[in-house]
Amino acid sequence: MSGNSFGNLFKLTSFGESHGTALGGIIEGVPAGILLNFEKIQAELARRKPGQSSIVTQRKEEDEVQFLSGIFEGKTTGMPIGFTIFNTNEKSEDYSHIKEVYRPSHADYVYEKKYGLRDYRGGGRSSARETVSRIVAGAIAKQILPEIKINAFVSSVGEIFIDTPYQDLDFSKIESNPVRCPDEETAEKMETYIKQIRKEGDSVGGTITCVLQNVPIGLGEPVFDKLHAELGKAMLSINAVKGFEYGSGFCGARMKGSEHNDLYNTDGSTKSNLSGGIQGGISNGMDIYFRVAFKPVATIMQVQEALDSEGNIVEMKGKGRHDPCVVPRAVPIVEAMAAMVLADYYLLNKTQKR
Amino acid sequence: MSGNSFGNLFKLTSFGESHGTALGGIIEGVPAGILLNFEKIQAELARRKPGQSSIVTQRKEEDEVQFLSGIFEGKTTGMPIGFTIFNTNEKSEDYSHIKEVYRPSHADYVYEKKYGLRDYRGGGRSSARETVSRIVAGAIAKQILPEIKINAFVSSVGEIFIDTPYQDLDFSKIESNPVRCPDEETAEKMETYIKQIRKEGDSVGGTITCVLQNVPIGLGEPVFDKLHAELGKAMLSINAVKGFEYGSGFCGARMKGSEHNDLYNTDGSTKSNLSGGIQGGISNGMDIYFRVAFKPVATIMQVQEALDSEGNIVEMKGKGRHDPCVVPRAVPIVEAMAAMVLADYYLLNKTQKR
Amino acid sequence: MSGNSFGNLFKLTSFGESHGTALGGIIEGVPAGILLNFEKIQAELARRKPGQSSIVTQRKEEDEVQFLSGIFEGKTTGMPIGFTIFNTNEKSEDYSHIKEVYRPSHADYVYEKKYGLRDYRGGGRSSARETVSRIVAGAIAKQILPEIKINAFVSSVGEIFIDTPYQDLDFSKIESNPVRCPDEETAEKMETYIKQIRKEGDSVGGTITCVLQNVPIGLGEPVFDKLHAELGKAMLSINAVKGFEYGSGFCGARMKGSEHNDLYNTDGSTKSNLSGGIQGGISNGMDIYFRVAFKPVATIMQVQEALDSEGNIVEMKGKGRHDPCVVPRAVPIVEAMAAMVLADYYLLNKTQKR
Amino acid sequence: MSGNSFGNLFKLTSFGESHGTALGGIIEGVPAGILLNFEKIQAELARRKPGQSSIVTQRKEEDEVQFLSGIFEGKTTGMPIGFTIFNTNEKSEDYSHIKEVYRPSHADYVYEKKYGLRDYRGGGRSSARETVSRIVAGAIAKQILPEIKINAFVSSVGEIFIDTPYQDLDFSKIESNPVRCPDEETAEKMETYIKQIRKEGDSVGGTITCVLQNVPIGLGEPVFDKLHAELGKAMLSINAVKGFEYGSGFCGARMKGSEHNDLYNTDGSTKSNLSGGIQGGISNGMDIYFRVAFKPVATIMQVQEALDSEGNIVEMKGKGRHDPCVVPRAVPIVEAMAAMVLADYYLLNKTQKR
Repeated sequence: MSGNSFGNLFKLTSFGESHGTALGGIIEGVPAGILLNFEKIQAELARRKPGQSSIVTQRKEEDEVQFLSGIFEGKTTGMPIGFTIFNTNEKSEDYSHIKEVYRPSHADYVYEKKYGLRDYRGGGRSSARETVSRIVAGAIAKQILPEIKINAFVSSVGEIFIDTPYQDLDFSKIESNPVRCPDEETAEKMETYIKQIRKEGDSVGGTITCVLQNVPIGLGEPVFDKLHAELGKAMLSINAVKGFEYGSGFCGARMKGSEHNDLYNTDGSTKSNLSGGIQGGISNGMDIYFRVAFKPVATIMQVQEALDSEGNIVEMKGKGRHDPCVVPRAVPIVEAMAAMVLADYYLLNKTQKR
Repeated sequence: MSGNSFGNLFKLTSFGESHGTALGGIIEGVPAGILLNFEKIQAELARRKPGQSSIVTQRKEEDEVQFLSGIFEGKTTGMPIGFTIFNTNEKSEDYSHIKEVYRPSHADYVYEKKYGLRDYRGGGRSSARETVSRIVAGAIAKQILPEIKINAFVSSVGEIFIDTPYQDLDFSKIESNPVRCPDEETAEKMETYIKQIRKEGDSVGGTITCVLQNVPIGLGEPVFDKLHAELGKAMLSINAVKGFEYGSGFCGARMKGSEHNDLYNTDGSTKSNLSGGIQGGISNGMDIYFRVAFKPVATIMQVQEALDSEGNIVEMKGKGRHDPCVVPRAVPIVEAMAAMVLADYYLLNKTQKR
Repeated sequence: MSGNSFGNLFKLTSFGESHGTALGGIIEGVPAGILLNFEKIQAELARRKPGQSSIVTQRKEEDEVQFLSGIFEGKTTGMPIGFTIFNTNEKSEDYSHIKEVYRPSHADYVYEKKYGLRDYRGGGRSSARETVSRIVAGAIAKQILPEIKINAFVSSVGEIFIDTPYQDLDFSKIESNPVRCPDEETAEKMETYIKQIRKEGDSVGGTITCVLQNVPIGLGEPVFDKLHAELGKAMLSINAVKGFEYGSGFCGARMKGSEHNDLYNTDGSTKSNLSGGIQGGISNGMDIYFRVAFKPVATIMQVQEALDSEGNIVEMKGKGRHDPCVVPRAVPIVEAMAAMVLADYYLLNKTQKR
Repeated sequence: MSGNSFGNLFKLTSFGESHGTALGGIIEGVPAGILLNFEKIQAELARRKPGQSSIVTQRKEEDEVQFLSGIFEGKTTGMPIGFTIFNTNEKSEDYSHIKEVYRPSHADYVYEKKYGLRDYRGGGRSSARETVSRIVAGAIAKQILPEIKINAFVSSVGEIFIDTPYQDLDFSKIESNPVRCPDEETAEKMETYIKQIRKEGDSVGGTITCVLQNVPIGLGEPVFDKLHAELGKAMLSINAVKGFEYGSGFCGARMKGSEHNDLYNTDGSTKSNLSGGIQGGISNGMDIYFRVAFKPVATIMQVQEALDSEGNIVEMKGKGRHDPCVVPRAVPIVEAMAAMVLADYYLLNKTQKR
């Protein structure tokens, strides 16, 4: 209810603030008997980690996950998996400059109004730091569904877009560059642009495309919990996301039915896939693909107007180390959320036919 | 869990298929003591109703809601509100032509695979006919929140777009034309275009923009249940929706932080509103606005290939009376879903501060 | 949340008041492809029905269920099953005598205080009439689990108890007498006693014992959703219930561990069954048995003091036709709730092992 | 779903096994702005702690709670409160003797069958050690509702019962003796008896009575979530509980309506209180009282038969330090669960009237 849980059968409940003692969560619904690969989990955390390359924030965070329960002799037991990621530098920074100030396009003001007080250190719960918990749960979800391939990548930064359809991209190159763009030429342009933006003390938005392959037919629920509706909510819940489209997306709204319909092959697959792998909310076995829009990070290294708690407009400038562009580090988060949705619907689907 | 419920405190659970005996639902969480305006509820149903104008399907459906419980002497009692809308013509049509056929870009195939059988009459539960229940719940949600203004309208049909920012539109003109586009000149073009599309036996997509005004500060939950994430899920759960964006949306992904940040006025309002009325998932008192993309209706009056249950490609042509463009009738559905989200989060917000 | 739903995967959401237009509900999570036996459903309703024998209320209620969705060609489709039971005599009775009066040990007063108003006709939602919806859902739950035997029976009325252990009773005799007590001699005493109580214008309490046989090992969840905890909640939610015990129950609290422990046979069954078929919240394959205490019906045909809405003590006497003892008609309700719990946990258990 | 959560708005999700790294949980729904008294929380843990007196287990567990989030400058922030209690001695004990053995009346066998494997160390998740998390959540729930008085006490051990009605007991004496029985004479008898039972290497059951005073009118939901149904589930979910009754309980089933009905005073209070403070599932402002039955602890220091994983009957004897009688240490657990139910329903009730 209060917005800290995601999923039904496969379910993450998370806790933690940017500069509290620790972040973490509880993962429920993981079937018993899965031999977990812990290196893969830690590797996903490394993909989200600050300081991993020259184009992301240079903050140092260890992000080492400790599992506290639900695992015995390396295997899941069916019991809830509790885990923590301690904040190692929670006391090192000075946040007194934002204690009484509401930064523009941050959540400071609404938290104060909604709750009557707020943890102002680094944005508290509103900081994207909470996504470490999503990464852990997503990395476990992936291990429930080893046959499904989940690949997200940066498809645009500012006005720089990949032109190639995803089918012509080599996903194995996603991790070959710091932008996480599988088209190397475009990746270079993006990297150069992000470095320039950082030099300007500015930030820039971008989009991530995600492709889910080898998804079994039948995942998704008819009405309110359509597979793409849940994927959409999952993505829109990630910090800085402003939009979601799947299959033909907003372009589909410009098309005619005679162009848009996906005709069948005799094996039940379709010749085109404007539907994006989902019909009536239920996966049809074709690739599921969707695109997520991220706004530019609100914290910039330029002087800006802000509001103080007494109603005065004051000048402030971002301190600390922030990402000039959030999308490279958001790639594993998009994948994690997609994995969680699929794991949840996969388990549910086990109960629905006689 | 199985996808028939929407909301937490204010909650609709719906049932019903296109050609079953009746559709309906149960609305929970409506505070006791609200004097309901039943005419307004029926009026919303009329906005969704087939046959209401020359550019929508000419099917006749009565769509008369009967309330069965939860209301006493005209007032809500705090008890669940059960309601039904009987299908008056459920036996009159012939669906034997699709009994063994999976229509392209319909849910026929996935339902059959997921459940092992399907109610093939008019698409069964996958038909947009289920949205009548959403309309009823939304109309009641609006009456919980009389101070909030909810206005949705058609902002594009195919390649025809409204150019005017929503602030310059007169929402009172939305209902003045069958397209539900408040810009009269554009509305006429859209109407002409839809008629042409129908003549071609084709269909066309479009977008709906929705504006929520006078929303109190503080609705929305920090992490997974951000207000825009729930709005996004609500919209994506509507039949034929392919995309959702709010505030700056996909355009925001092209912008720099220095352009995108909304600077404060001294009263806590903001000078610009690229955020779209939501910060960190919580309403900030500014207008909330979002855009929803609808694909073209899959049923067209042209000969198309389909798949039969034995794996043969067969030719088929749409029968019956279908919408050439779904967006005019989807306007009240978008509003209904938005109202449900707001009512739910409004109630939840009552419990969160000491 | 607002207390109208029961279950997670197999889930009933109900609506309706004693004298509203109709009662009914939505059943979700029924696996697709089950050929329903409608006669059995209607037969369960007949077991609950008023007027069925000389020792229960002589009110006439038709209690005919109409299914509105989720069933096609006699089989479940996986879609929600909506159903209604219309109140056929809702306008025939006069309830003006209780409009301004709070009857002792009824819910009149608390409803008025909680909601600010109430539907006073026949107790509104607080009437046991709502249990018709439970019967329907329970009858369907039984058809999901045909191999499980569910038998409830009256084990005491006032001070008259069955002495025989359930293992020595012939459950086929439960329906052979109007009390629903399989021990015929005791049944006769109970019947005579109930008739006497009715003559006195009084009412009397009783207990129901329920035995669940052939339950597969593994139903139930470790901590908060232990199988017996959910069974307990299910039973305590039935009108007039004051207590629940399973296995050794309150007697177990008097025993020593050396007496109470159930020793194993080599096949995993146990020699004794003081545990009541559940260990650590999970079914162990032995018989599950529990006992439910019902208070005497509050409405009696004697003059009693009541409170009016202006704070005066007034005299009143029960009108209409009421049960002198509720347990005979509560037997099918106990079974229905048990069936719903088992169906829900059975489905959940399908998802928990690799 | 998988049984690790309790509550709706006020909600605990817990994790942890007896001998895992740590136990803990996440508490959601705590209103923002409550200045927490941490000493009171730790004091409740001390009441549950092993080794606290000569009649309970002499195991040493530190049970020090560490809060990780949701609290800032001593106050709740509305964010989820994550907490851990590390197991300090998890590696010190030897459990190899039960690795392949299913102890009688323990959950060993059903866990193995349900999940295909189990954490056999100290019972894993099925150990009552998980109740530390309930204590923490309950101690916070109490601080949301400072005006409500919650008092549980031991009302029987084996055949030794308190005879005095609760109204004549002095609750301030509950903590004056190790049994937690406010009647000092009875407490002494109980203590002597428990010591004798321990000497015999045996265990014994008992009951706990709990009284909730000053509960506002209106907590509880009409049908499935009646206040006593949720209290019942809460209590039945505690390890070793076999029964629950409230108000007149099982005795009420022997009574006549003319004896059982609670007549009103002019202020809405009632002259008697056989109802137990709840009418139709909703609190009526009178004392709520209920009784919980605990079976004797299954682990005894005598030689008993057990089953091994290959189907052989083997002899075994309890090792380690166990409680001869669980009820003294269960008193704070009963209170904690009651507090959680009340806090949850209190928050929900804020949303139900216009």
